[in-house]
Amino acid sequence: MLDYNVPGGKLNRGLSVVDSYKLLKELSSSKKGAQLTESEIFHSSVLGWCIEWLQACALVLDDIMDSSHTRRGQMCWYKLPKVGMIAINDGLILRNHVPRILKKHFRSKPYYLELLDLFHEVECQTVGGQMIDLITTLVGEIDLSEYSLPTHRQITVSKTSYYSFYLPVACALLMTGEKLESHSGMKDILIEIQDDYLDCFGDPEVIGKIGSDIEDFKCTWLVVKALELCNEEQKKILYDNYGKKDPESVARVKDLYKTLKLQDVFEEYEKKTHEKLNKSIDAYPSKAVQAVLQSFLAKIHRRLK
Amino acid sequence: MLDYNVPGGKLNRGLSVVDSYKLLKELSSSKKGAQLTESEIFHSSVLGWCIEWLQACALVLDDIMDSSHTRRGQMCWYKLPKVGMIAINDGLILRNHVPRILKKHFRSKPYYLELLDLFHEVECQTVGGQMIDLITTLVGEIDLSEYSLPTHRQITVSKTSYYSFYLPVACALLMTGEKLESHSGMKDILIEIQDDYLDCFGDPEVIGKIGSDIEDFKCTWLVVKALELCNEEQKKILYDNYGKKDPESVARVKDLYKTLKLQDVFEEYEKKTHEKLNKSIDAYPSKAVQAVLQSFLAKIHRRLK
Repeated sequence: MLDYNVPGGKLNRGLSVVDSYKLLKELSSSKKGAQLTESEIFHSSVLGWCIEWLQACALVLDDIMDSSHTRRGQMCWYKLPKVGMIAINDGLILRNHVPRILKKHFRSKPYYLELLDLFHEVECQTVGGQMIDLITTLVGEIDLSEYSLPTHRQITVSKTSYYSFYLPVACALLMTGEKLESHSGMKDILIEIQDDYLDCFGDPEVIGKIGSDIEDFKCTWLVVKALELCNEEQKKILYDNYGKKDPESVARVKDLYKTLKLQDVFEEYEKKTHEKLNKSIDAYPSKAVQAVLQSFLAKIHRRLK
Repeated sequence: MLDYNVPGGKLNRGLSVVDSYKLLKELSSSKKGAQLTESEIFHSSVLGWCIEWLQACALVLDDIMDSSHTRRGQMCWYKLPKVGMIAINDGLILRNHVPRILKKHFRSKPYYLELLDLFHEVECQTVGGQMIDLITTLVGEIDLSEYSLPTHRQITVSKTSYYSFYLPVACALLMTGEKLESHSGMKDILIEIQDDYLDCFGDPEVIGKIGSDIEDFKCTWLVVKALELCNEEQKKILYDNYGKKDPESVARVKDLYKTLKLQDVFEEYEKKTHEKLNKSIDAYPSKAVQAVLQSFLAKIHRRLK
């Protein structure tokens, strides 16, 4: 179960802990290229793996709830004949190992309690975002008129950005001895990062799953933007076809996205968000954290290209 | 979701925290009938509710994995048309509130860390037990010859006894300022308590669900004992009918249980276990803990009658 579900991703989140910690150490000791000790590499890697395990749990469970088929280029875990609904308990086993691993390697650290609190907070955010995502896409209850940028933002921030972008940097920061409460501005910046554009335009070979946001009536940036830009006739196309499973309906929505040039609109939006985020980062009081945020943002930005 | 899933049980686990704490305080202050302060009632009740929320999570998720129909006299949560697989996330919302509630009310207590560790340990045990339960009952993989008392014991201790019997008393003990590591003997006694007999002989009206251990090929005390006591002919009945969904097969197994007088055998076994537990309790070094264990055991014993 672990071999099937934990590896296979790009490890962006896990590696971010190590990379961020390295940057923070370099800049706070003002020795460029300062080497991490063996213990520092080990401990930041452990935290990185904790995030990967937590994500593995989220993916295993989300795939059941979304009736997904593939994940990271293989069948979803719950789809295997011998697994089925046992996958729910497997998800819990994955997540329950996180506090166990933290206890084993961090119980004696001065920031242990803050670390536990951080993981708890992030998990609460993730399931909260997942809840809004699920209840807005509930079969029989769907209503496109309720979709707006604020709803979209609320879902992605809670469901994805907290554990993908905030959690790794926050882990690294705790390891340096900083208090998270002194860095609430950092959280505000990191949770603004979004990557849900990939599901629709991304290459399935690259992202490792077949996107089904349109079929699943997901409140994506794309559909919210389409609703904003479309005329009455196009709006009808959206209302008639969004959330339908048949390939013709999906194709009609994708065609409309093309007609509305959403790919260009997204690139423009992405550029603006990027600039805005860079500005917030430039205004951030700590140089070391600035460098981490810049490097982080650059990495995400490259992934979107 | 909370109103549907959290109340409706008998609150045995939650009330045990308050009752145990009251007994511990009475006996350690040697003032019979010592009143709890408002804060003590409040805090022990909070811990009690945490256990009830954790149990609500376990029930919501177990019902999906076991394909159950009813629970506490109503339809299982996931069976409601508007819920379905969203119930998985609802389960996580229930459990994720536990650390949140603990943080809100216990972060300043000297035993906060131990409390978090305790809940983590118990959750790990619960999902571990659930895993063994699930993989031994996997359709297509079932094998009655693998069922034995040690397997049955491993499942019930991990899956049920840890959170039902150990957790409430351990919470109360932490509140008194004791260290759990000084009371490992208490855990050994509490996890020996079992109550899975109810599923087969219990009245559905009383236990609030229709038992389906036979249909689900569960490794119960009853089937393990039946395997031990049966002759070759009866063994064939078990192998042919245990784990089948049709009412005839279930009736055949229940008839065999009656032929083998398992109800009597269980009562005898229960009496012996009870005596053995009482002996262990009498040998326990702390009088206050002794009293709690005695009262706890007496309560469970009454429920089985």
